[in-house]
Amino acid sequence: MATTSRKDSLTYAIVGTGAVGGLYGACLQKAGHTVHFLAHSDAEYIAQHGLEVESPWGDISLPQVHVYSRTNDMPACDVVCVCLKSTMNHLLPRLLPPLLHPGTVILLMQNGLGAEEEMAALFPSALVAGGLCYVASNKAGPGHIRHIGEGNVLLGAHSNGMQDLINRIRSDFTAAGVPCTVDPSLFDARWRKLVWNIPYNGLSVVLNVETDRIMAHPSSRALVADIMKEVVLGNHACGGTIEEGYIAELMAVTDRLKPYSPSMKLDYEAARPLEVEYIHRRPVAAARAAGFEMARVEALAAELEFLDAQRRGEFAADRKTLNN
Amino acid sequence: MATTSRKDSLTYAIVGTGAVGGLYGACLQKAGHTVHFLAHSDAEYIAQHGLEVESPWGDISLPQVHVYSRTNDMPACDVVCVCLKSTMNHLLPRLLPPLLHPGTVILLMQNGLGAEEEMAALFPSALVAGGLCYVASNKAGPGHIRHIGEGNVLLGAHSNGMQDLINRIRSDFTAAGVPCTVDPSLFDARWRKLVWNIPYNGLSVVLNVETDRIMAHPSSRALVADIMKEVVLGNHACGGTIEEGYIAELMAVTDRLKPYSPSMKLDYEAARPLEVEYIHRRPVAAARAAGFEMARVEALAAELEFLDAQRRGEFAADRKTLNN
Repeated sequence: MATTSRKDSLTYAIVGTGAVGGLYGACLQKAGHTVHFLAHSDAEYIAQHGLEVESPWGDISLPQVHVYSRTNDMPACDVVCVCLKSTMNHLLPRLLPPLLHPGTVILLMQNGLGAEEEMAALFPSALVAGGLCYVASNKAGPGHIRHIGEGNVLLGAHSNGMQDLINRIRSDFTAAGVPCTVDPSLFDARWRKLVWNIPYNGLSVVLNVETDRIMAHPSSRALVADIMKEVVLGNHACGGTIEEGYIAELMAVTDRLKPYSPSMKLDYEAARPLEVEYIHRRPVAAARAAGFEMARVEALAAELEFLDAQRRGEFAADRKTLNN
Repeated sequence: MATTSRKDSLTYAIVGTGAVGGLYGACLQKAGHTVHFLAHSDAEYIAQHGLEVESPWGDISLPQVHVYSRTNDMPACDVVCVCLKSTMNHLLPRLLPPLLHPGTVILLMQNGLGAEEEMAALFPSALVAGGLCYVASNKAGPGHIRHIGEGNVLLGAHSNGMQDLINRIRSDFTAAGVPCTVDPSLFDARWRKLVWNIPYNGLSVVLNVETDRIMAHPSSRALVADIMKEVVLGNHACGGTIEEGYIAELMAVTDRLKPYSPSMKLDYEAARPLEVEYIHRRPVAAARAAGFEMARVEALAAELEFLDAQRRGEFAADRKTLNN
């Protein structure tokens, strides 16, 4: 396998060719990188027809891609971009080993807290980093990604001594047309994204509405602010430094958004499992370990877990009915 | 007007001839008391056809009742049973004055916290008491109450020096076939009912299920226990003495119930306003004034207020559509 010297171009594995992995993987391949894609339901389709991305950055059509349906058939790569939903993270201990050589970067392009710690513990010879994707994108069909807007990636090192590698990845993303910056604190960066994700993802499911309705009623608007405050205090309890003014800033940003369905609402509507564990439960557990109770977030997590089970139970029941 | 001497039979006004007022008022009239009923939409119907109660205690048919559509036409009574939903309490300052003579008992047969304090402040010459109704009853149609089960009333004095009067009312209820006891602490009695009402009324609406489903999933079950604990701690902060073992007791009782729709869920389904103010907001405010934050209950209140507004907005829109 290629070693990651300065001269070589980094090779990339995309674990999960969905809304996130399909978009960024296509950008990297178009820019000249060797990219290996792991796909699930549409691996066969992509092998035959390639990958299509509609994007305001310019459409991308890749007639030929390296696509696989199992990582055992894939080569080890320099950067393994984990683009699965965090609800699939229990599969990673089995999926990742064939992709790793000494010094591979496992880049977790996911929401929520705690996955870097898990990967670092599971794969001590890998380097671990996080990638926060501020993107509106979805899967329109087999091998077909529809990127609607934004798309910034915020990178942060979890392992020590990988700053040069992180900067090379940032350069690759930027050269591929993806706005990409490096955050000196992955820890605070993850919590910052949680300040938005915890209330809006959660309440959009529990209240069954988009962000504009949540912001329009004084009770739910105040609840968003209360939850955000709790997340910021949780961050502080864990040693973070998010300033309180960030709350007003995020709420103002959300006020300016068009009516928006957070990813958890889209998952709920599609009867896909909800990312409650990494978005809600892990922060609650981290804060609790530091002596702070995030009561509102914990209550929201419980409601979401109930609704998730209920919804997918009903969905299973619907499918059973259809099959009979 | 009659004075409330030992010899006289107490006269009763029933403010709100619905599921609660219709049942208890009918029992009292059948037992020989003079009862004056305030009705709203079905006053005319009741004037013509009387009042019917189906009940496991024995059906009651009252062809003739004193029924009114405004309290201005009603006589002052010894006991004014307020059987409206607490969502109508803003009407009481206007409704009650014609019914009061010096020493009238205003008996608040409602859920939630804080109405006794309000009535005592508004009507300083009245005596104020609370009546907690443990009853499953609903309005089946005009002048028609369907009492399904239970029906215990727990009475408690709010004003000082009314213990004899409370005991007379208890005797009247008991003689009328209504199981009735007097609680020495109305304060703790109200909070005890809240320990059940706050989680089950709230979550049955937010999660859109009956009690059995809430109890069947580990997340929602744990959330019920967490909320109950918060209510008990709120009670303690306010000087109450509910023992923590009460939580396990209530959960065991609920486990033995058939699938049950709390009144707030029935209200939600009928697009009636939800009793969030007295059941959730007032306890939060009381605890906060005593220095304790009921974060989970406050979050639940905000969700309920949002869903209430959403639901009744939609209902209004539906009705508008029907009218067009």
